[in-house]
Amino acid sequence: MKIDIITVVPELLESPLSHSIMKRAQDKGLLTVRTFHLREWAVNSYGQVDDYQYGGGAGMVMMCEPLANAIESLQKEQPYDEIIYMTPDGSTFNQSAANELSMKENLLIICGHYKGIDQRIRDMYVTREVSIGDFVLSGGELAAAVVIDAIGRLLPGVLNDETSALFDSFQDNLLAPPVYTRPADFRGQQVPPVLLSGDPKKVEEWRFEQSLERTRQRRPDLLEGQE
Amino acid sequence: MKIDIITVVPELLESPLSHSIMKRAQDKGLLTVRTFHLREWAVNSYGQVDDYQYGGGAGMVMMCEPLANAIESLQKEQPYDEIIYMTPDGSTFNQSAANELSMKENLLIICGHYKGIDQRIRDMYVTREVSIGDFVLSGGELAAAVVIDAIGRLLPGVLNDETSALFDSFQDNLLAPPVYTRPADFRGQQVPPVLLSGDPKKVEEWRFEQSLERTRQRRPDLLEGQE
Repeated sequence: MKIDIITVVPELLESPLSHSIMKRAQDKGLLTVRTFHLREWAVNSYGQVDDYQYGGGAGMVMMCEPLANAIESLQKEQPYDEIIYMTPDGSTFNQSAANELSMKENLLIICGHYKGIDQRIRDMYVTREVSIGDFVLSGGELAAAVVIDAIGRLLPGVLNDETSALFDSFQDNLLAPPVYTRPADFRGQQVPPVLLSGDPKKVEEWRFEQSLERTRQRRPDLLEGQE
Repeated sequence: MKIDIITVVPELLESPLSHSIMKRAQDKGLLTVRTFHLREWAVNSYGQVDDYQYGGGAGMVMMCEPLANAIESLQKEQPYDEIIYMTPDGSTFNQSAANELSMKENLLIICGHYKGIDQRIRDMYVTREVSIGDFVLSGGELAAAVVIDAIGRLLPGVLNDETSALFDSFQDNLLAPPVYTRPADFRGQQVPPVLLSGDPKKVEEWRFEQSLERTRQRRPDLLEGQE
């Protein structure tokens, strides 16, 4: 899978994409992420890529021309399955969107900064607008890193043990069950005895019940239409 | 505001916390973020902080003892208003949680990695469990960076123009209106004439209508109980 990113703050993306599981995915050749500074396509020698918004008000808007030129020049290298704009008014990202996007070949992600990008770029080029949640960030970079992490770990071969991702929260619309490790007694707090029973069937049943119970208590919305 | 973070992959957090608005917040002394490697409180000289999960299955669990020791030693320096655990089964972070947390003085954020932390630490120490959305990440680090960014930009004095955050999406349960900048005609696509009218009242009305319309179309759930 190949993911290209257009940003005005590429530095923000450095460490999230170069450590841990994202590093492993890239080292194994399963994921290629390239970051492009929008300034490469600036409209003048000052490197201008943003301007005041029409109608007045605080905050700068990312201009049409650098973005259009960036998108078109990258598209010449390869077509994209999706041109994604990270924006709080996009459709809310979730595990099912992660599963879907993890099956694409080429993605382009545009990170807004300041007040966002000129609406005409959204109308003319963007195929999918994605929000990671109902909150506002300084820019789309961290949101893009989140989406890439969520997608990247689903690519076959990225996680050491492929069963690991299947038992995560949300893959079956249930939250994950509680987990415990040694010691069995920590300052008087015990591990549930069933986990020490050595009976895999009982352990599995207990985990399923705990998942269901936790989901009922914390996120009954996930169960709607499921039961 | 002070935020301490406990993690096993502090490298992941480097660039998100040291550029752009988070850098500015820290340079101005409005926000202090400290990152602690859990390994400082490892249980043995191999630096062990995780172990296999009781009951079997893929994925390691972060052990009680290093976490308990880390939390208690940091608490001795200062009490925390909240001890937050980033986890997909926590309560979903949103702008109102960001507003609320931005008024705290001292926060401790625990980032899980692998399968998460031993349930007993959640029972004994954690005061708030936070999820940034219904998807699974490699670890809590990016989620913590997202929360810190969303909170940090709300601290008075962090954004250049304080009105800027007030007009963001979600602050009034409405999505933000479209934005435009020069040129007025981009490859035949025009800026809405009202934005060029020079009439601030008309511009304000148009923006409000656009916000409302966009929210109705994309996120009618935000308007429930509002109208």
